[in-house]
Amino acid sequence: MAIITSAETIDIRFPTSLEADGSDAMNPDGDYSASYVVLHTDGLDAAGQPLAGYGITFTIGRGNDIVCMAAREIVNRLIGRDVDQMVADMGGTYLSLCSDSQLRWLGPEKGVVHLALSAVMNAAWDLAGRLAGKPVWRLLADMTPEQLVDIADLRYLADVLPRERALEILRKAEPGKAERIADLEAKGYPAYTTAAGWLGYSDEKMLRIIAEQEQLGFTAVKLKVGANLADDIRRCRKAREAIGPDRPLMIDANQVWDVPTAIEWVNALKEFDLRWIEEPTSPDDILGHRKVREGVAPIGIATGEHCHNRVMFKQFLEAGAIDYCQIDAGRLASLNEILAVLLLAAHFEVPVCPHAGGVGLCEMVHHASMLDYVAVSGSYEGRITEYVDNLHEHFVHPVRVAGGRYQVTGDAGYNTEILTASIEEFRFPDGSYWAAARS
Amino acid sequence: MAIITSAETIDIRFPTSLEADGSDAMNPDGDYSASYVVLHTDGLDAAGQPLAGYGITFTIGRGNDIVCMAAREIVNRLIGRDVDQMVADMGGTYLSLCSDSQLRWLGPEKGVVHLALSAVMNAAWDLAGRLAGKPVWRLLADMTPEQLVDIADLRYLADVLPRERALEILRKAEPGKAERIADLEAKGYPAYTTAAGWLGYSDEKMLRIIAEQEQLGFTAVKLKVGANLADDIRRCRKAREAIGPDRPLMIDANQVWDVPTAIEWVNALKEFDLRWIEEPTSPDDILGHRKVREGVAPIGIATGEHCHNRVMFKQFLEAGAIDYCQIDAGRLASLNEILAVLLLAAHFEVPVCPHAGGVGLCEMVHHASMLDYVAVSGSYEGRITEYVDNLHEHFVHPVRVAGGRYQVTGDAGYNTEILTASIEEFRFPDGSYWAAARS
Repeated sequence: MAIITSAETIDIRFPTSLEADGSDAMNPDGDYSASYVVLHTDGLDAAGQPLAGYGITFTIGRGNDIVCMAAREIVNRLIGRDVDQMVADMGGTYLSLCSDSQLRWLGPEKGVVHLALSAVMNAAWDLAGRLAGKPVWRLLADMTPEQLVDIADLRYLADVLPRERALEILRKAEPGKAERIADLEAKGYPAYTTAAGWLGYSDEKMLRIIAEQEQLGFTAVKLKVGANLADDIRRCRKAREAIGPDRPLMIDANQVWDVPTAIEWVNALKEFDLRWIEEPTSPDDILGHRKVREGVAPIGIATGEHCHNRVMFKQFLEAGAIDYCQIDAGRLASLNEILAVLLLAAHFEVPVCPHAGGVGLCEMVHHASMLDYVAVSGSYEGRITEYVDNLHEHFVHPVRVAGGRYQVTGDAGYNTEILTASIEEFRFPDGSYWAAARS
Repeated sequence: MAIITSAETIDIRFPTSLEADGSDAMNPDGDYSASYVVLHTDGLDAAGQPLAGYGITFTIGRGNDIVCMAAREIVNRLIGRDVDQMVADMGGTYLSLCSDSQLRWLGPEKGVVHLALSAVMNAAWDLAGRLAGKPVWRLLADMTPEQLVDIADLRYLADVLPRERALEILRKAEPGKAERIADLEAKGYPAYTTAAGWLGYSDEKMLRIIAEQEQLGFTAVKLKVGANLADDIRRCRKAREAIGPDRPLMIDANQVWDVPTAIEWVNALKEFDLRWIEEPTSPDDILGHRKVREGVAPIGIATGEHCHNRVMFKQFLEAGAIDYCQIDAGRLASLNEILAVLLLAAHFEVPVCPHAGGVGLCEMVHHASMLDYVAVSGSYEGRITEYVDNLHEHFVHPVRVAGGRYQVTGDAGYNTEILTASIEEFRFPDGSYWAAARS
């Protein structure tokens, strides 16, 4: 029997703005950051090591301290809890952390308090996986449909996804689970890369990286667009010429357009046979996305990295506003809410293609995609998960990608533990990197 | 010429949970709180007093410090600015505070960072009113349509409210402005009270307050519902008997239901001839509100106090999901965004009935309603603004209500300055009240 004895919240910031990694039309100079939560216990994990849980949400710099402050307020509620009891009722654990009505007022279920809840529950899930000695995708995939619906946050979804319908989806995926697990272990989950497409990169750098990525097995390419139409036309043309007519090419505007502009701009790029336009406009504009979808067909609409909770995904899906559902593992409140969105997407037959990159998002979303494949949708069709080869060196158990696919790592937990040396260097503002930068 | 020389952010909490004031089905024990921002300058106001601006956003306790921290991050950008330049371009001032892409990631335009932006811009608007020697509603009502559209945040609204359409609405309201101002000064703006309806009150207390409020000229009554159906039936029956068949009775569920439950519950109260059901479900559930609206007609749907920005209001209005648009002056990012929502509501011909209560919300929203009447919708029809007689004693220039209507106070600014003695007593955690409560 173990107890959660203490918790840490740590503001970690990487100076990515120096290299224009991650630059897009909305976010020209992000410093990729982690609001990092550590749950300490007095117990041991399945391997006999001190048991702890490590959770992340991702931000792009300023304000990371604000999320850490909110996470501290939330995580304090876990201190003193019995680990076995917490892990045996992860649905109840999640609800107990949502139930502070005073903090709820600050969202509800959105913005800083929801990002902070994500970091805390991600740490709880990492702890649960380590205690069981399993990757979290496998911990969940091994559960019964009834156990899974008790974990999924189905609040406010009853009009489209009542509990019985959620059970039906999960039961339908039961046959073939073992075969799909074996398939994942042999081949991995399909990925694409945004490595070449950042707006701050020169055409030469873009083409060089596209060629490098092809060598690594990545067949799809995504470019950031939206700052200058002539540039976008030139870059799309060069990318399409480089990859040939058959490979998928996607574009991403990071919310810079209003609806009429989105329709006009995307139609000006139509000749390049685009699979999707990502984040064409405000992430709150459900009906606007539907208008863009109608205005640029057959180009698909992808969004979700800023879609703040399952209720918003319900809108996008029910309104017929999106073709690809891009969940974010740091913005949705952990696997409890991700599972609800996987179920909603399966109900509406829309493929889930998670957002990744940043810090730790690839580490987390490969679990979400593997869970979707094994236990929810049961399919790869139309599905492809983002991968960015950036900052993985700071993780104790980084994701592995080979042949253009996320591999099963076999590591227990959520792959979200950051190396102590990296924390010492990039903790803000007192890590060695930032102390030196100020002097 | 004056300069903004410094800014303060102060966490002020009132122990309202002790009396069950403000108790509802979602929020049983709120401590009404203000994230309070003060802009200091080296200049003088129109009355020759030291010029400053005082802004509020409202929270219900824990987490108020988180909002203050975010406000500090935002308000620092105003320090050193020339006051005349800032006030001459309040649209540009607002945009410059929205434009930090790193902080934007934490919303975008929602949750803690948006609440904080509201507090900061509310202080800037208070300062603008004081400099001009006018109440802010009058400062805006005296502007031209062109000046107003430059202030309104119309970003992401172009598909339903292009600039030309916004100008058309404002120009249509130009004739009759002087008469409407005179009418407001003579009679005031229609209000209703939630004083009797809190869930924690006994039936006797409810009926006593209804009678008292009637003596004060309030004709409409609103009750909190959603905890227990038998209680709600009894309370609605008693309230309806007390006020007779003709006066408006409204109910407010504070988001506790999912869609099917909302429809069933409200229909069980139909015999009491309800004007509206407020916040029947999640504030993010646009299509769900439309289903409730269809399911409980002719009872109207009111929502908005948790509707986090103008893009969300665009959804509710365009989807035909609401009958009453309940803007909140602390959740929308100040008059720049409120003006955009007033324009949207006028375009869709939905009456704006602001949410109030809390700390300082009545002080602020009476400006929004008066602006709507004089310069946007030009109408009282179907419009009624919430009033709660609570905590006004802490304000230097509190709102005045007489004959059931908000009166024109004539005070320059936004009526949001809190008494120094109240700050010294209720500043958290070191004010004299909280220090004594801990000892």
